Amino acid sequence: MSGGDEFTIIQNVMAPLAHHPGARGLADDGAMISVSPGMDLAVTKDMMVEGVHFLADDPADLVARKLLRTNLSDLAAMGAQPCAYLLGLASDGQREQEWLGEFVDGLARDQEEYGVSLLGGDTVAAGRGLLTLSITAFGEIPAGMSFARDQAREGDVVAVTGTVGDAALGLLVRTGALRGLDETLEAGLVSRYRLPEPRVSSGVALRGVVHGAIDISDGLLADASHLAAASGIAMELSVDAIPFSNAARQAIHRDPALRDLALCGGDDYELLVTLTPGDLARACNIARRCGTSLTAIGRCQRGSGVTLLDDEGSHVDIVDTGWRHSVLAAAPVDHKDQGH
Amino acid sequence: MSGGDEFTIIQNVMAPLAHHPGARGLADDGAMISVSPGMDLAVTKDMMVEGVHFLADDPADLVARKLLRTNLSDLAAMGAQPCAYLLGLASDGQREQEWLGEFVDGLARDQEEYGVSLLGGDTVAAGRGLLTLSITAFGEIPAGMSFARDQAREGDVVAVTGTVGDAALGLLVRTGALRGLDETLEAGLVSRYRLPEPRVSSGVALRGVVHGAIDISDGLLADASHLAAASGIAMELSVDAIPFSNAARQAIHRDPALRDLALCGGDDYELLVTLTPGDLARACNIARRCGTSLTAIGRCQRGSGVTLLDDEGSHVDIVDTGWRHSVLAAAPVDHKDQGH
Repeated sequence: MSGGDEFTIIQNVMAPLAHHPGARGLADDGAMISVSPGMDLAVTKDMMVEGVHFLADDPADLVARKLLRTNLSDLAAMGAQPCAYLLGLASDGQREQEWLGEFVDGLARDQEEYGVSLLGGDTVAAGRGLLTLSITAFGEIPAGMSFARDQAREGDVVAVTGTVGDAALGLLVRTGALRGLDETLEAGLVSRYRLPEPRVSSGVALRGVVHGAIDISDGLLADASHLAAASGIAMELSVDAIPFSNAARQAIHRDPALRDLALCGGDDYELLVTLTPGDLARACNIARRCGTSLTAIGRCQRGSGVTLLDDEGSHVDIVDTGWRHSVLAAAPVDHKDQGH
Repeated sequence: MSGGDEFTIIQNVMAPLAHHPGARGLADDGAMISVSPGMDLAVTKDMMVEGVHFLADDPADLVARKLLRTNLSDLAAMGAQPCAYLLGLASDGQREQEWLGEFVDGLARDQEEYGVSLLGGDTVAAGRGLLTLSITAFGEIPAGMSFARDQAREGDVVAVTGTVGDAALGLLVRTGALRGLDETLEAGLVSRYRLPEPRVSSGVALRGVVHGAIDISDGLLADASHLAAASGIAMELSVDAIPFSNAARQAIHRDPALRDLALCGGDDYELLVTLTPGDLARACNIARRCGTSLTAIGRCQRGSGVTLLDDEGSHVDIVDTGWRHSVLAAAPVDHKDQGH
C-alpha cells in the first residue's frame, strides 16, 4: 500500500485497536510497556506468509485471529498472561480495504477475548512480494515463575491439555482428503484447524505446578521430542492414553493410518507439560476449571528420545506418512514453522 | 528454507548471537525480559522487504545492520537504552548459507557496537515470496522519562543532531544521478545512505532535557510535520540554519535544487528534538560529548504546520521534486515506510 494509504490505514483502521496506554495512539514509531514490579515480560514473535501459512482467499478475520492465537499459545507455554502485541504488515498492495477491515475485526474480537491490546508496529510495502504478517506478543509473569521446554525432570509425568490431531484431520477434511464423517464432526475438525484455542488460562493457572512445557505446533511427537531433547531426558508415551476427540476417534476407527497423522500433524496448540506425579490430580482440576482437560500420557526418564508404547508395553512404530506435507504442497494452507 | 535447514540455522548460526539470558539459547518459541525496577520498556518494530527496502545484491551484513539500526534509531527517539531484539525472517529459500553467514556477521558486529543481544524470533518459509525481515527492538528507560513526538511545546527551540540530507544524496550517488564530487565526499554520502548511525547515546544522554523528539526517517520536513502535528504546535524553521555536511554543501552549491531533496529525502536517522531555549547550550554539550553536533534550526509556536524561512524572514517554498521516488522506482533500493 502506498505511504498515503498506509497513514490513513494506521489512523483510521489500526488506531481503534490500540487501547494500551503505551501505544500512544500509534502516533510514534515506538511504544512503551510498564512491567509491574516483580513481574517479568515474556515475548514471542511469529510470522505468517500468504500461500505458506494461509491462503489468499482465507477469511481475513480468521487469518488475523490465527496469527494472534499462535503467539498467545507461545505465551501460554511459558505461563504468561498476555497483555499486548505489535503488528507487522508487509502488504502486496493488492488487498482491498474490505479485507483489511475484516482483518482488523478479527483482531478486535480476539483482543476482547484474550484481554490484549495493539501496542504498535510497522506497515510497509511488500513490492511484488506476498502479504507477510508478523506479530510480537507480550505477556506478564511473576519473576522466576515461567516454565520452559528445558525444565522437564526425570520422574515427571507427561500430560497434555485437550485433544490431539483435530487440526491435522481438519486440514484433510478441508482439502477433501477426509470425507464421510458426520457433518458436525467434520465441521468441528475444520474449526480446530482454522481457529486454534490457545490454552492461555490453563497456562497461567498451572504456574508453580508445571515443570517443562511446550505448545504443540509441530505435532505431538515432534514437540515431545523438542521437550525431551531440551530437558535432556527420555520420554515414554502410552499411545492408548493419548486423548482424541470423538471426531478424531471416528476418523481413526475408519482408517487406522490416520492415528499416526493425528500424532504427527501439528497445529494443535495444546499444552504438553511435565510435572511431579503427585501434582497431577491438582493440575487436572486446574485445567478443568479453565475449561479444558489434562490427560496423563507418559513419563520422563533418564536417557533421550521419545518412545511410544501400547497397552502391553510393546514399542509402537509411528509412520510419519508425510501426508500433511503432500497435502500442503497441493494446497499450501498453513504450515507453522518452528520458532526460534 | 526447509524445516531441517531452519533448525540447523537456528542452532548453528543464530544461537551464537543470543547472549541474553532471557533468550534461553533460542531453544524456546518465546523469551523472557526482566525489566529493572523503576524502568519502562520501549519497544519498536520495523520490517524490510527485498526489492523495496534493500536490493537482492546488497551486502548481507549491511542489510542486517541497517535493519537493526533503524530500530535502534526509533529507540533513540524515545531516549531508551537498547538492550535486546527479536528477529523475524521469512526466507524465499534461495539464500545461500554464505548470505546468511554475512547477515549474522553484520548483526554480531552491531550487537557489540550497541550492546544489544538477540532474544529470539521466528524463521519461516516465504514460499514464492520475497525475503522479508522484521526486527522488534527493546530498550530500557526510567519510568516517565521517555520523550515522544507529541511532547513539543510552544516556545521550544527545534534542534537536530548531525547533518541532514546525506543519505538522500548518497542514494543519488549510488544510482549515478549525482556525479563529479570529490571521490571521498561521494563515498561519505553513500556510506550515510547504506549504514545509518542511530543517535543512541545522544538519545539516552538527552533524557530530562528534551521535550518532543522524532528520528528523521521520512525526511526532515516530513518528520518536522509529524512532530508539529502530534504536538499540536506550529514549527518555524530557518533554512539557512539547517546543518549540511561538507559533501552536501558542495553538491547543493553545484545544483541548488538538491537542497530541497536534502530536506525531503529521508533516511537521515538523526534526532529532531525540541527543548526549552535555556537548555540549548547544555544539550549541545551533551550531543558533542556523544560524538555528534546539535544545531538549533527553529522554534515551536502556537498554530499548526511547518514553515521554512530564509535569513530575511521570507517564506521559502520547498519543491519536493519526487526525485527520490523516481530514483526508487528505477532502482528500488530503500524506502523506509513510516512506522505506526
